[in-house]
Amino acid sequence: MLVGKIVGHIVSTRKNEKLVGSKIMEVQLIENEELKNKFIVALDSVGAGIGERVLITTGCSARLAMPDQTAPTDAVIVGIVD
Amino acid sequence: MLVGKIVGHIVSTRKNEKLVGSKIMEVQLIENEELKNKFIVALDSVGAGIGERVLITTGCSARLAMPDQTAPTDAVIVGIVD
Amino acid sequence: MLVGKIVGHIVSTRKNEKLVGSKIMEVQLIENEELKNKFIVALDSVGAGIGERVLITTGCSARLAMPDQTAPTDAVIVGIVD
Amino acid sequence: MLVGKIVGHIVSTRKNEKLVGSKIMEVQLIENEELKNKFIVALDSVGAGIGERVLITTGCSARLAMPDQTAPTDAVIVGIVD
Amino acid sequence: MLVGKIVGHIVSTRKNEKLVGSKIMEVQLIENEELKNKFIVALDSVGAGIGERVLITTGCSARLAMPDQTAPTDAVIVGIVD
Repeated sequence: MLVGKIVGHIVSTRKNEKLVGSKIMEVQLIENEELKNKFIVALDSVGAGIGERVLITTGCSARLAMPDQTAPTDAVIVGIVD
Repeated sequence: MLVGKIVGHIVSTRKNEKLVGSKIMEVQLIENEELKNKFIVALDSVGAGIGERVLITTGCSARLAMPDQTAPTDAVIVGIVD
Repeated sequence: MLVGKIVGHIVSTRKNEKLVGSKIMEVQLIENEELKNKFIVALDSVGAGIGERVLITTGCSARLAMPDQTAPTDAVIVGIVD
Repeated sequence: MLVGKIVGHIVSTRKNEKLVGSKIMEVQLIENEELKNKFIVALDSVGAGIGERVLITTGCSARLAMPDQTAPTDAVIVGIVD
Repeated sequence: MLVGKIVGHIVSTRKNEKLVGSKIMEVQLIENEELKNKFIVALDSVGAGIGERVLITTGCSARLAMPDQTAPTDAVIVGIVD
């Protein structure tokens, strides 16, 4: 799993129908409490916003956190770090 | 998930029968709004063309975006970025 | 699989309900018996604590080590290295 | 997915029984039409030979291209690039 | 898939019960016939020993090579290279 800070929001009007309604976030990774020059794009499942530090699950288990578990995603925000 | 710009088109006449009919795109990755020297090959599922910025799902969830969900692919274009 | 040393503990009050009750650990990777400048975040399934050297499974097989195998995680601590 | 050039052939007499009969190829990756100093080992499913440029699927979808879809592989050659 | 040389053996007394009885090996990767400064930890399924060159499957297909296919592992030695 990854920890990162949400730094942006990606807008896609034309996309797979199972992704409609999900916010698509760009997240800058944090390792050992330092922001790194690494980025990932993830769907939000917990109502997180820009600037928040979040926990991300990647790979084929990520979609288990989505309301529709057949959504074609490989990265989902599954928690907000306190 | 990844964001990138489509930079090319790969042609393969002899391929797995479940890949027949899919456009195979080469995509240059964009991180934090900058083009990077990183590339990925992905199938198109949304009618994207060269020069467009797209959203890509990788790994074993990628094929959930294909008409035939048993297609042997690990990267599919699932949206066009506005 | 990966070997690493637990270096921290991540707290997330607002998270996916299937992650409630799991300790979220930050682990520094060890390769060839040397600590590396690489980190991963993993759920604990064996009662490991800070400072211990552990074995981690990543990807979609990781959740097979969790009590609820549908937990949306991609990295789980599956053993303590002697 | 990846594109690469087959540069070698790996021989393994003692192996998992579901891998018997599959050619095991070493492939040098091509990104943006340039050969890179990156290599992957993949099973062949299309009759490709040394020197050919091929399309590779990785991860758990790779085995969908094998005659026996329960073969324990994470990389399969699924097409020959024209 | 990966090719590497077994360089060590990891001992874990306290581990997931489905991993009990499997040898846990540290493997140094070989790419294009050169040993690299990259390491992976994998379970053995073919009776390989230290010093042998082996073929490894990673990701969620790896456990298909294990006697218990629900073992929580992401890397298994599936062949010995001749």
